[in-house]
Amino acid sequence: MEKLELLYEGKAKKIYRTNKKEQFLVEYKDDATAFNGEKKGTIVGKGALNNQMSAIFFQMLSEKGVENHFVERISPIEQIVQKVKIIPLEVVVRNIAAGSLAKRLGLAEGTALRHPVVEFYYKDDELGDPLINDSHISVLQLATPEQLQQMELVSLKVNEILSEYLLTRKVLLVDFKLEFGLTEDGKLLLADEISPDTCRFWDADSKEKLDKDRFRRDLGHVEEAYQEMLKRLGGEVLV
Amino acid sequence: MEKLELLYEGKAKKIYRTNKKEQFLVEYKDDATAFNGEKKGTIVGKGALNNQMSAIFFQMLSEKGVENHFVERISPIEQIVQKVKIIPLEVVVRNIAAGSLAKRLGLAEGTALRHPVVEFYYKDDELGDPLINDSHISVLQLATPEQLQQMELVSLKVNEILSEYLLTRKVLLVDFKLEFGLTEDGKLLLADEISPDTCRFWDADSKEKLDKDRFRRDLGHVEEAYQEMLKRLGGEVLV
Repeated sequence: MEKLELLYEGKAKKIYRTNKKEQFLVEYKDDATAFNGEKKGTIVGKGALNNQMSAIFFQMLSEKGVENHFVERISPIEQIVQKVKIIPLEVVVRNIAAGSLAKRLGLAEGTALRHPVVEFYYKDDELGDPLINDSHISVLQLATPEQLQQMELVSLKVNEILSEYLLTRKVLLVDFKLEFGLTEDGKLLLADEISPDTCRFWDADSKEKLDKDRFRRDLGHVEEAYQEMLKRLGGEVLV
Repeated sequence: MEKLELLYEGKAKKIYRTNKKEQFLVEYKDDATAFNGEKKGTIVGKGALNNQMSAIFFQMLSEKGVENHFVERISPIEQIVQKVKIIPLEVVVRNIAAGSLAKRLGLAEGTALRHPVVEFYYKDDELGDPLINDSHISVLQLATPEQLQQMELVSLKVNEILSEYLLTRKVLLVDFKLEFGLTEDGKLLLADEISPDTCRFWDADSKEKLDKDRFRRDLGHVEEAYQEMLKRLGGEVLV
């Protein structure tokens, strides 16, 4: 596998072309941002930790029948993924009120929701990734009704699989964000990453935060939280 | 009909109990507010104008089969309505991008939408009436899925009826907000008001605004715009 030119640099990852037409190389970065890029920093070792955690989650999901873009982890900070065109929607699934949901609905952080809540956000930095509804998605032609329904169903399945698994590791899956993409022949695949950058993980007993909220809210022990999460997933922390 | 004690005072209306158990008396006020109450003012004569316009719209909708709370206009600023318990949701239907939709989706004001957009906002002043989706409504138990579907269907029917009628009066129905309530036996009724306070009306040719945006945006000729709208609806402007 040859790493060819940089195609896209995001806030937390770089995407490279490879010599295989249908595959991209993803490089995970240590850069951390929050509040739509207003807050910037570095979480030392994050790239390697998230590369490993994403790989673990994606493999687990593949085994449970959730098709996704992950192919193979090829170095501490690199993985190969199937080439997809990302749908400009963030799908957020929530089990416990936190962050923007707590604020929007006036719920105390930590309130258990009576059923998982699914939200769609329009991936647009200039607009600040606004919450949108099915009617907005349709009028902007961001996804077909069928794609939307599939994204929602897959996201709820991911929620079930990961929530159940994480509970065995004494972790509550509070909420998480997924992205989807389309292959050249129009197949919908789960894509992007699954890591403490994109999920809220709380210790099941102490409710201690083991995710990017430690960076967002200046809670300290950011690197340790990411390392602790990888340990709980059975990964190997190389320091 | 006796006007008994004040039950509720809102930003634009007062609701009184009457000697009839199933009916309320609504008094329309001249008070105007915008931006969730941050901007306050008076639009002279608005109460009488909106009382008349709401009556015209509700009667028209009744004739077209859209059940609503309106019973009878009994004075320049008063009307009798059926007693309902308001569902804490604002249903917004949009035909042309304006206001918060233009901002949220990054569309130029005036962009025609390829189909009507329906939005639900959570009526909660402290939270700033946030946009919410079906999943939020369900988790907060604000309405049943059946009520939600009926509210959406009725709102789209209101949009068709009013858009078509207004066009004959050389007015574009840009967007509007509806509220619904439940009677004691659980029947869903269109409620609240339909007026330049709750709709965006543009002159079909000049695109001149004939609604509360003249107050919100300090465009002047506020009273004249409300009067002009009533004239176009065939009402009688008493000065």
